[in-house]
Amino acid sequence: MTKPVLDFWYDFASTYSFLSAMRIAPLAETEGVAVRWRPFLLGPIFQSQNLTTSPFVTFPLKGRHMWRDMERLTAEMGIGFRRPSAFPQNSLLAARVAMAGMDKGWGEDFTRAIYLAEFCDGKTISEQGIIAEVLGTLKLPVEATLAHALSDDNKSKLRVQTEQAQKLELFGAPSFTTADGEIFWGNDRLEQALRWAKRS
Amino acid sequence: MTKPVLDFWYDFASTYSFLSAMRIAPLAETEGVAVRWRPFLLGPIFQSQNLTTSPFVTFPLKGRHMWRDMERLTAEMGIGFRRPSAFPQNSLLAARVAMAGMDKGWGEDFTRAIYLAEFCDGKTISEQGIIAEVLGTLKLPVEATLAHALSDDNKSKLRVQTEQAQKLELFGAPSFTTADGEIFWGNDRLEQALRWAKRS
Repeated sequence: MTKPVLDFWYDFASTYSFLSAMRIAPLAETEGVAVRWRPFLLGPIFQSQNLTTSPFVTFPLKGRHMWRDMERLTAEMGIGFRRPSAFPQNSLLAARVAMAGMDKGWGEDFTRAIYLAEFCDGKTISEQGIIAEVLGTLKLPVEATLAHALSDDNKSKLRVQTEQAQKLELFGAPSFTTADGEIFWGNDRLEQALRWAKRS
Repeated sequence: MTKPVLDFWYDFASTYSFLSAMRIAPLAETEGVAVRWRPFLLGPIFQSQNLTTSPFVTFPLKGRHMWRDMERLTAEMGIGFRRPSAFPQNSLLAARVAMAGMDKGWGEDFTRAIYLAEFCDGKTISEQGIIAEVLGTLKLPVEATLAHALSDDNKSKLRVQTEQAQKLELFGAPSFTTADGEIFWGNDRLEQALRWAKRS
């Protein structure tokens, strides 16, 4: 029997996407749902809402709550969270590499490793050296992988994926979408989205 | 033994405050936490963030998701939700009446009844006639209650409460605050806020 599918849309700059990336695999396994990991870029989507940066920067009180919320939630999850010095980070390179990894079976592991580097180890994920380090820990050939990630073909795949997110009218991350057209926004909706995917 | 206290800050225009108002009493009972119901006005708080209306209006895609999210969540809760024709509604009069009721023991019941009128029966809660109807169903003396709600003393109490919300740097509703200075924002944090209040 084919498993029901849930699409998981995430941006590497997004704190709550980090939480979902760390939680989704075991939860989906329990529910018998297959997850399609879909890195995309929030930048163009925020721009089309006339936001020039993250709402957590535009609205400082909301931003302050988000950081404290992250501390409390990661403590409950047993994750050693550390607020990065820069936020939001430029997620373009990481998203391109993740995109390249999805067809090859290491995209999920890369995604989790990048999020941990960013939000636990305080690394700047826009730096090619940091991406290379993470690829190294995954035992992947660094130069060939980066060359593939930066190929026109792979860049175009990420662009198309971001355009699909816009067509679906996603407005934030993480978002979860189902085959029957539901959009669930936010890490807090992960469980509900999985249940929905399962029953539909 | 004195129960630990959780402050519950809500605005009658807020859809997610509605959900918390319907959920908080039994959950707090189970956790052994006393809830202080604190109606306030989001308007001045949004204004100080340079928002002229609800973010759900300013950002239409976020608004569209919120309505669908409300449909899904209320269905799970067994509440017959109906999207009101006007949003956000002017919540000033309802907040004044709720404020008047808090000292007298009927504030909580009034709060739930107003939310149900607004989000299940499609009523316009800025209308004095609707408020009067709700007071009638609660067997309260309509004219005397409205007169008290509109007294300078009671108006001032609501103003002070809204100023307290601003001093706490609340930025949205519902919010939950604890004696040790934590802010939990959103209906999704109700359970966590109760657990925090209990242990602190």
